[in-house]
Amino acid sequence: MPLQFASRLDNVETSAIRELFKLLGKPGIISFAGGFPDSAMFDIDGLKQAADEALTHESGGALQYGATEGYEPLRTQLADFMQAKGVAGVESNHLIVTTGSQQALDLLGKTMISPGDKVIVEGPTFLATIQCFRLYGAELISAPIDADGVQVNQLEQLIVQHKPKFVYLIPTFGNPSGALLSLERRRQILELAVKYQTLVVEDDPYGDLYFGAPPPPSILALTKEMPAAREWIAHCGSMSKVLSPGLRVGWLIAQPELLAKATMCKQFSDAHTSTFAQATAARYLKSGRMPETLKIVRKAYGARAHAMGEALKKHLGGAIEFTQPQGGLFFWARLTGAGGGIQDAAEFAKRAIEQGVAFVPGTPFYAANPDPSTLRLSFATANVEKIEEGVGRLGRAL
Amino acid sequence: MPLQFASRLDNVETSAIRELFKLLGKPGIISFAGGFPDSAMFDIDGLKQAADEALTHESGGALQYGATEGYEPLRTQLADFMQAKGVAGVESNHLIVTTGSQQALDLLGKTMISPGDKVIVEGPTFLATIQCFRLYGAELISAPIDADGVQVNQLEQLIVQHKPKFVYLIPTFGNPSGALLSLERRRQILELAVKYQTLVVEDDPYGDLYFGAPPPPSILALTKEMPAAREWIAHCGSMSKVLSPGLRVGWLIAQPELLAKATMCKQFSDAHTSTFAQATAARYLKSGRMPETLKIVRKAYGARAHAMGEALKKHLGGAIEFTQPQGGLFFWARLTGAGGGIQDAAEFAKRAIEQGVAFVPGTPFYAANPDPSTLRLSFATANVEKIEEGVGRLGRAL
Repeated sequence: MPLQFASRLDNVETSAIRELFKLLGKPGIISFAGGFPDSAMFDIDGLKQAADEALTHESGGALQYGATEGYEPLRTQLADFMQAKGVAGVESNHLIVTTGSQQALDLLGKTMISPGDKVIVEGPTFLATIQCFRLYGAELISAPIDADGVQVNQLEQLIVQHKPKFVYLIPTFGNPSGALLSLERRRQILELAVKYQTLVVEDDPYGDLYFGAPPPPSILALTKEMPAAREWIAHCGSMSKVLSPGLRVGWLIAQPELLAKATMCKQFSDAHTSTFAQATAARYLKSGRMPETLKIVRKAYGARAHAMGEALKKHLGGAIEFTQPQGGLFFWARLTGAGGGIQDAAEFAKRAIEQGVAFVPGTPFYAANPDPSTLRLSFATANVEKIEEGVGRLGRAL
Repeated sequence: MPLQFASRLDNVETSAIRELFKLLGKPGIISFAGGFPDSAMFDIDGLKQAADEALTHESGGALQYGATEGYEPLRTQLADFMQAKGVAGVESNHLIVTTGSQQALDLLGKTMISPGDKVIVEGPTFLATIQCFRLYGAELISAPIDADGVQVNQLEQLIVQHKPKFVYLIPTFGNPSGALLSLERRRQILELAVKYQTLVVEDDPYGDLYFGAPPPPSILALTKEMPAAREWIAHCGSMSKVLSPGLRVGWLIAQPELLAKATMCKQFSDAHTSTFAQATAARYLKSGRMPETLKIVRKAYGARAHAMGEALKKHLGGAIEFTQPQGGLFFWARLTGAGGGIQDAAEFAKRAIEQGVAFVPGTPFYAANPDPSTLRLSFATANVEKIEEGVGRLGRAL
């Protein structure tokens, strides 16, 4: 008799991506597949100093069990970090530290979703969000997006129709879309949250990665224009894309009751996030090196995004369409089929692997009604030279 | 309209402990309440060196996203560590790294428990296990224990009656019981697992903390005597009690299919455990300092356990009964009511706080049928002097 696993596992399907990632081991492959930041950009000296200081000056705190809510010096630094990004009045006890922002999603699922509950997400949205919420039994509803982010009129209709437990958005340089929700739409989202008393989760791992002008304020920051909306907005932040994913330091800001329930769930998920990593992150933020680190990261990714856009135009021309991203880590593109070219991104991905370049086809990013001609290209991991070479290979794979 | 939380939260009750822990902030209190290791025993120099080496020699790995299964150098070290503890043939791919062993419990819950499923636990058992499994909808069945651990005849009857999804045991210096499952019973457990094709989860955070002779081999190690049982045993390990809880490094050993499903669940729980903490732990284990660290820790806790036992006899005499623990961090005791003394541990806890000493009453450790005269005393956090002073206060509180 084999083991009987929990029925919630029946809701999850991960094989498509797993199969693709197996192929990435092929020697010489250029990968546009992952959303990994470039290791060459990590501020190793700064982190080494931060870790050493933490173990020297607060070894008790850094190595002992800690509060489930998070290590207080880090919570204070993160509150300051969010205030500096325009979120008025945020204090350390308005946030909890999570084991990466993936855990913030998991805790929202655990805290909020009963089996059969509906959750509205963008179509397309972050793959691991889809699976995470489905493991808690969510029925996902897909709201369409364009280059300005989620289409608010359609979102409103879906809220009315489905009465979701919450709405999940990646408003700033979305994954996989790269889209930037306009300021006008952000304000409309706040109105919807209040009008329908609906929780809106703003996942914001990429907001600091802008290449030109800064993006509009986060939806959370905009609640200062509409204080009644504050209790309906939850916000997930992360150090992963700007400092180091290996630390696994994210955070969740939400109204007190939700935060208390999420903390209780976290207690039984992992007790607390590594205090060793938290104390190191706190020392790093306190050191004042973050603004310079962000400048370096923005500049490098900006150059890569530019190079990828130019190379796509040069090597794929009319066969592909996309909006040049203004920040983040991703191009979201659509195969046009122009000139009788290939229009199925999964098939294109196979041919691309044969040419030595990898990307993720768009279908798995949709909770419903996938557009099979879409694909995601990450410019995070490869440098400009590799990007040009890799896009050249894409051209040959067409 | 307030937020509607997930129905799974209705299964959890944490207020009793929370209220108690609030009182711990009182100045001058001596705490026998928590299971925190003593910060004074952390090998700070060893960990500082390990962290520095990890950031110097493998900064890419230590700061980048990592495999959900765990950082390979750590998995290799942990496999060696388990082999040295008598688990034959364990290789790095037989285990996954978890964010503390609390996450191993959470992943077992997520992977195995459908709402309404039954799980057998010891009565009493680890508090956070009870809540963790209930959040996944488990109905917990309580199997009685004595000083030799779970009573196997009764366990067998409960397995037959309830057909549980799995059995959860802390066989070695259990929390809160301090009990040590005898070698004979360990072998009987293996027989039950095979006979009833029932998964047995062995949670083993305390096995290395023995004061005299080493305990019998772990249930997992004993599978070498009965290879057919290997697939029915899952084993949770942890660095928290022997090296540092702040690292949040635990591990789960299980048969391949269960491990694969747990890995999938972990992917959507926190993506992976901090590679920064994992690389540091791997370097530490590789440094060869662990055996000396274990010697120091065993000696210190042994002295504390001895002091607590003597003080209890001296100050509480016949009013309390207990078995002297041979390892771990806890005394499990029962108020006898001798001489008309207090017999309700919750009431005794209140009086003790007034005298400046804290412990946890036993009731919350039972999934069912609590014995209200029981209590747990930890000798982990306070040194010998404080233990004698604290137990004196307990005597005055009687």
